Amino acid sequence: MPAPDPQSILDGNRRALAKAITLTESSLGAHREESQRLLEALLPHTGNSIRIGISGVPGVGKSTFIESFGQLLLKAGKRLAVLAVDPSSPVAGGSIMGDKTRMEQLSREENVFIRPTPSGGTLGGVAQKTRETMLLCEAAGYDVIIVETVGVGQSEFQVAGMVDFFMLLMLPGGGDELQGIKKGIVELADALVINKSDGEGAGIAAATQTQYQSAFSLLRNESHWTPVVMRCSALANTGLGEVWDTIQSYVASTRESGFFERQRATQNRQWMQQLVQSLLMQRLKESPSVAAALPKLEMDVESQTITPYAAARRVIELMDEG
Amino acid sequence: MPAPDPQSILDGNRRALAKAITLTESSLGAHREESQRLLEALLPHTGNSIRIGISGVPGVGKSTFIESFGQLLLKAGKRLAVLAVDPSSPVAGGSIMGDKTRMEQLSREENVFIRPTPSGGTLGGVAQKTRETMLLCEAAGYDVIIVETVGVGQSEFQVAGMVDFFMLLMLPGGGDELQGIKKGIVELADALVINKSDGEGAGIAAATQTQYQSAFSLLRNESHWTPVVMRCSALANTGLGEVWDTIQSYVASTRESGFFERQRATQNRQWMQQLVQSLLMQRLKESPSVAAALPKLEMDVESQTITPYAAARRVIELMDEG
Repeated sequence: MPAPDPQSILDGNRRALAKAITLTESSLGAHREESQRLLEALLPHTGNSIRIGISGVPGVGKSTFIESFGQLLLKAGKRLAVLAVDPSSPVAGGSIMGDKTRMEQLSREENVFIRPTPSGGTLGGVAQKTRETMLLCEAAGYDVIIVETVGVGQSEFQVAGMVDFFMLLMLPGGGDELQGIKKGIVELADALVINKSDGEGAGIAAATQTQYQSAFSLLRNESHWTPVVMRCSALANTGLGEVWDTIQSYVASTRESGFFERQRATQNRQWMQQLVQSLLMQRLKESPSVAAALPKLEMDVESQTITPYAAARRVIELMDEG
Repeated sequence: MPAPDPQSILDGNRRALAKAITLTESSLGAHREESQRLLEALLPHTGNSIRIGISGVPGVGKSTFIESFGQLLLKAGKRLAVLAVDPSSPVAGGSIMGDKTRMEQLSREENVFIRPTPSGGTLGGVAQKTRETMLLCEAAGYDVIIVETVGVGQSEFQVAGMVDFFMLLMLPGGGDELQGIKKGIVELADALVINKSDGEGAGIAAATQTQYQSAFSLLRNESHWTPVVMRCSALANTGLGEVWDTIQSYVASTRESGFFERQRATQNRQWMQQLVQSLLMQRLKESPSVAAALPKLEMDVESQTITPYAAARRVIELMDEG
């Protein structure tokens, strides 16, 4: 598979972009080389988008939200890319079908590019591919990138670490309905958006909003931004303008304070550090001696037969043996 | 420095214990070997304590709390060790003086062993030494270990990862007073204990308790334990019995469900994994080629001149060169 010409991506050729992403997702070493060369060439043309992370438990209405919110962005003259990080999703083929069906209107728009979760691999690997896909989409001129993930696990931390603004979609009511949201994820959010704030849900949503505002005022404190709690109905198309206004004022104020660029620089440096670690861990995993000895060592550590330090040193020795 | 005889530590000899800890804290390779041999010998005699993490912002009254709470434990027939993780603390000498003065009564008790933060090194290194010190104290027969840390940074995550029960001391009032507590730390707590609930503070403390209870019911959900919000006054010596009762019922219920042992096994495995990573990172840091090239590579990554992947691969190549 030859890499597409960088210029064709800069020109906004959708086929070329799709091909470049497929190359990025490939696990073949040769493809990796090609895709890295392509990324290097495109790097000066990346970074010019607003990167938005969206998460929420199944049933919160993420697809409907992105469908309606996407239309609003299109009307504002934006070009939108929708990516996903969800290592639990089915194989790519099925997932593409799924995503296209999920966001039927958006998927027919000229200025929208939808790409499902890359299939297979670890969460770290999936996140890595999504980061690179984001850069390719930026080079292709998409100026808003939505990275969607499902609110039930570790993927939120990965997504929050690659976007400028992370929002959590919530259901009116809270309490029992929140059982699906894992510890620490609410703390990642720059905004909580209570969806389905319509009909009978409207009153409950208002109460939920007040509760979260007061919980946030107790539990969160940051110098660069005070997390916002909002209501909307993606179905009734209300409150979405306020969400977009909030994101724009976040971008304006953090650009002015320098936090916006600082966060991106930090994210890049951390991305590199994660890659160094994962390359080293990969070497560890590929060592047959380590693979053979590791399960027993871990068991001995868990049962306190050997100290973690002794086990760790043994692992490194084994890795050096090959 | 010869390692103390394992039996002398099992016999509860304080001098031997202090010497063993000093050996553990040493950065000399030979000391490391000796201390590891000693730990291996003592390992079967470790684990028989309740490990309690305590954190809170400066001014919340941690020392007074530990002083009063410690007296209560002594009356309950416990032997208590108090350790600390605070990489920002001054050199060991000064810190020992400080700790002894801070907990004047406790420090004179036969059944109490107080050890300040090991000096120097990274947070990871300090935490590693504290974990090993905890094992030594267990072998010496201390059946409650308090690991104290200051509520302003990353050290809470390290401490929460090495104890059975993590509690956060709070001030009555919340809101503005919480400015010092970093994102995510409240989420680590198995209990919030509102201290200084006496005199004029009592009414405010009760209101704060209600607020946190409601915030917790919204934001936290875990199967093994519902975080508790309590009030106490370490100065007036009220509410401390309830804290100890809570810890005991936590231990009883998590032992019964199996979570207690499972969490310890997980902590041991993660400790080993952290050590593997830190040994690899150490090798990376000790490579002169990496040290020479890293600052420039990081700068290039931050400014998007090269991709994080290309930079990471270069780092690994340089490490292999030595």
